[in-house]
Order: sequence, then structure tokens, then C-alpha cells
Amino acid sequence: MKVFTTHELPQECRKMLGEELTQDPSDIINAEVIMGWPTELSNLVSRAPKVKALQTFSAGVESMDFSVLPKSVKVFSNAGAYSLPVAEHAWALILSLAKKVGKRARGESYLISGKTLLVLGAGGIGSKVARIGRDGFSMKTIGISRSFKDPEAFHERYSYREVENHLGRADVVVNALPLTKETRNFLNWERLSKLKDRSIIVNVGRGETVDREAMIKLLRERPSIRFGTDVFWRKDGKENFDDPIWELDNFTGTPHTAGADATREALDAAMVAACTNVARFLREGKADNEVRIEDYI
Amino acid sequence: MKVFTTHELPQECRKMLGEELTQDPSDIINAEVIMGWPTELSNLVSRAPKVKALQTFSAGVESMDFSVLPKSVKVFSNAGAYSLPVAEHAWALILSLAKKVGKRARGESYLISGKTLLVLGAGGIGSKVARIGRDGFSMKTIGISRSFKDPEAFHERYSYREVENHLGRADVVVNALPLTKETRNFLNWERLSKLKDRSIIVNVGRGETVDREAMIKLLRERPSIRFGTDVFWRKDGKENFDDPIWELDNFTGTPHTAGADATREALDAAMVAACTNVARFLREGKADNEVRIEDYI
Repeated sequence: MKVFTTHELPQECRKMLGEELTQDPSDIINAEVIMGWPTELSNLVSRAPKVKALQTFSAGVESMDFSVLPKSVKVFSNAGAYSLPVAEHAWALILSLAKKVGKRARGESYLISGKTLLVLGAGGIGSKVARIGRDGFSMKTIGISRSFKDPEAFHERYSYREVENHLGRADVVVNALPLTKETRNFLNWERLSKLKDRSIIVNVGRGETVDREAMIKLLRERPSIRFGTDVFWRKDGKENFDDPIWELDNFTGTPHTAGADATREALDAAMVAACTNVARFLREGKADNEVRIEDYI
Repeated sequence: MKVFTTHELPQECRKMLGEELTQDPSDIINAEVIMGWPTELSNLVSRAPKVKALQTFSAGVESMDFSVLPKSVKVFSNAGAYSLPVAEHAWALILSLAKKVGKRARGESYLISGKTLLVLGAGGIGSKVARIGRDGFSMKTIGISRSFKDPEAFHERYSYREVENHLGRADVVVNALPLTKETRNFLNWERLSKLKDRSIIVNVGRGETVDREAMIKLLRERPSIRFGTDVFWRKDGKENFDDPIWELDNFTGTPHTAGADATREALDAAMVAACTNVARFLREGKADNEVRIEDYI
């Protein structure tokens, strides 16, 4: 099967995918698998009549236009490929907020060890965030998720609809939710207002899983609560890294640098993960991380 | 034995030290133990003819004037009492530097998991820093120290004079050295120049254990190296938190907020640790953390 990729891949991929791997645009018409970023994939699909599967380089797929895909096309995300760098990044945000790093003014530090960590979304990233909390900082870990990639990372596990009962128990909340119909504005005012004083909230999922106005209201009304994010709310289709939320003293952030864009090292590893998944599809006709399209349209 | 304290202590201390605990200055003349911050203790000792022991609230004792102490007086530091908050703080600096938290401009992220962590000074703080690296981030941990409080936290252990052989192996260096005659300018140019590109250095010991000019030269000449500190070089006897080093893009810091000053929670726990040590001295005539005065004069 011909595999077309929109970007140059690491050496290891050529070994896995062999002669059938091409980056030549004239080969798209014969491609049965296409690898690329989500918007590239939905743009290319009409030019690839033989395509059976799309493999994204990214973990999130919500920017793909699912309405243009023929029903027979399977979509595989790269979920889990950035788990380690993104989990480290979540911890960088947690600890920066707890210790007010980079602020020359003195601010109160919060202790983290032994406290309670609530993780929203227990896929690869969320599970790794919990492991670091449990093993590195002796935290009690609670997971809220549809499914658990590493159940052992959590002392307690609950479904999405049970979240209301546990938000008020958390000293640290890490949001690693994908953006789906179900998770848009998941952290709304009703839920955010259950958080306790001196809690820390970190978002490494997608901006829109948090209600922006509710979060700003929370940070203004309750200054002991601190929020850090790597993902921003979209404006005209693009993440707005210049959001005025930066002006708040109980906020810190990074401009979506946790995953792919941040380091060649992490991006190479993620591309190899995508290739490994495609190699499996070529061999077995199935692969990991098949996207449930009904979650998006 | 009368125990005089310069500051109000948590409730638990009164239970441990009982009726003999006083904060009344007229009791200093009868005090056999005095608890306080280092400079307070050396100032008070001439007014306390019966004093046998001094217990500091701080972990470091280098600001005490040892020349005024009668030979018979034992000095006990509060080493270890801030291990947990300071170790967390070191990790906040490491991860903030690795992920460029709080900087709105995009910068390259460094991965931490699985890399090599070199810890200078393996007392309470250094050992806890290593544990977090080993258990939380699967790092290889190397300790350089005179003694090891928790040897198991380190995969490899070496003495001060072996440091030259290991600096070039480290991806992350955490300096948790006390300031003694031996450790002043411990990280000098010769040693700093052995560090590899993209390494991260964090100081939670004392400013003067790092050669300031050498560090600034290193950060200017090799921008992939990043440095973060909670402790600053003294100017006219006081830590200068407005050091121009803040202007460097590969620097981040906090104004000595890792330990006592940062959080009531950490300070209360540290005062209870000091009281526990004094209670042991009252009972047994000996206690932990006896300072070797020859290290300071």
C-alpha cells in the first residue's frame, strides 16, 4: 500500500514503511494511507480516491473537517505520542504556579507533596501526569475519564458525570481533556466555583474545554486560586496567545509549546509513533487510536 | 532547663518544651537553650551566661557570628526542616527553565525524563531533590557530597573533589550546598565550563557557592544553558534580589522564597522540627544537626 506523508519523516520510518512511503504530491492519487496534520488530511482526501486511512501527527484531531471524509475512511490519531513531554509540561505549570517562579515580587508558595491531584482525562497524558504526582510527590490521585490508559496511576477513578463530587477535594486540577462535543466548556462556572481556596488549575488539553469568562471571573474573585495553561481559546480559528488573561497575577502560561512544536526530540519521537501505527495498519488492517468520528460531528 | 525563643512557636512546641519555654526577654539571663534565627542567636549569647546550646530556625547558619560564641556552646541547625518545600522549589525552577514557563515568546522545551541529574550536597534537600528525579521522572541520579542523608536516592555517589569528572555528564545540576569555607565559589569557571550544551543549573543552596561572574559569562556565551536560582549573591550583607542577571533570557528566579519565608505551612513545620530537636537535647544532652564550627571560622 502506498503511504503519502506531508512532511519529511525520521529515518526509522523509512525502515518501517519501506518503498511504499512517498512525499511526492503526484503519488497522492494512488495513496491508500495519508500521514499529516489534521487540516492537511481533510484538505487532501478529495484528491486521494484510493485512501483507506488517515494518520495524524498530532494527538488532537478536532481541527480536521470530518464532514468531507468518505464513510469508509478510518482516522487514526497520534494520541499518547506526546504524553511524556506534555505531562512534564503540566508539572512545569503546576510548580511554577505553586512557587511563583519568574515573578520578582515575593508571593506565597504552596506545598504540593501529599496533597490531592485531580486529573481530567486519563489517556496517555493524564495518566503520566498522575504517575508523576503519585510517585514523585506522594499525592493522592483521582482520575475523571471515559477510559483509563493506566488505571494504576489513580487511587480513585470516576466518570465525567461524577466530576461535581470531586472538584472540591482537589488541591491541584490538571485538565488533559480532548476537545469533543461532550467536553466543550467542561469546566464551566458551576464546576469551577466548587474549587477550594489555594487550588491550582492547569490546562494542557484544549482551550475550549474551559469556559473562558468563568475562569477569568474565578481568578479575579478568588486570588488565592492560580491557573496556568499551555492551550488558548481560539479567535478566528487560531489560538490567541495574546489573551488578556496574561495580565492577571494568578495566571501563567506558555504558547502551546508542550507537545509537537516544542522540541525536535519530542516531535521526532511522535512521528516515529505515527509510523509504527501505520506499519501496523499495513500489516493487520487495524491500528491504535482509531477516532470515533461521531464524537466530533 | 529554661528555653528562650525569639519568636512565637506553634502550639505543639509548648507541649514538647513545657513550662520552661519563655519568650520574655528578662528570662534570657537564665536561658540554657536559645532558639532563633542565626544573627539573633549570636547577638543574644553575651546576655545569656548559662547558655549551653543554640538552635536555629533556619537550615543555613553561615550568617551567625561564630567568633562571639564561648567554646562550650553547641550550635544546632535546622538542616532538613525545609527539605520538602525547598526540593519542590528546586523542581519548580528546573521545569520552568526546561519549558520556558511564563515567557510569552516561543522557546525550545527540553525533555527531563530519563536524563541525568547531578545533585551537589546530599543532605535533606539534595536527597529529596534526587528522590523526585528518580521516582517522578525516571532520572539517573548522581550525588556529590560530604555525607549522604538518603544514599538510596542516588544511583552514584562521589565526594566533593570528584565533581570535575561528573559535571559534563549532567543534563540537570541542582546545587543544594551549604555555604562553608570549602563551598564558597564551588561552581567556578573551571567547573562551569565543563557543563554540556542544553544543561539546566538550579541553585537552592546559597548564592556564594556559585561564582557570579563565571555564571554570567557562561549564560552569555552559551545560550542553550539555562540557570535558575532562589538564592542571590549578597551585597552589603543582604541578598541582592535585583541582580542584573534577571535580564538574561536563559535565567529565571525567585526571591529566596523556597523555605521559611514562603509559606506559613512550611515555616510552622520547620519550627516544630526545631522544637523536637531541642526537646531531645533537654532529654539526652545531645541532638541532631550539630554544627561543626570549624567549617565556618
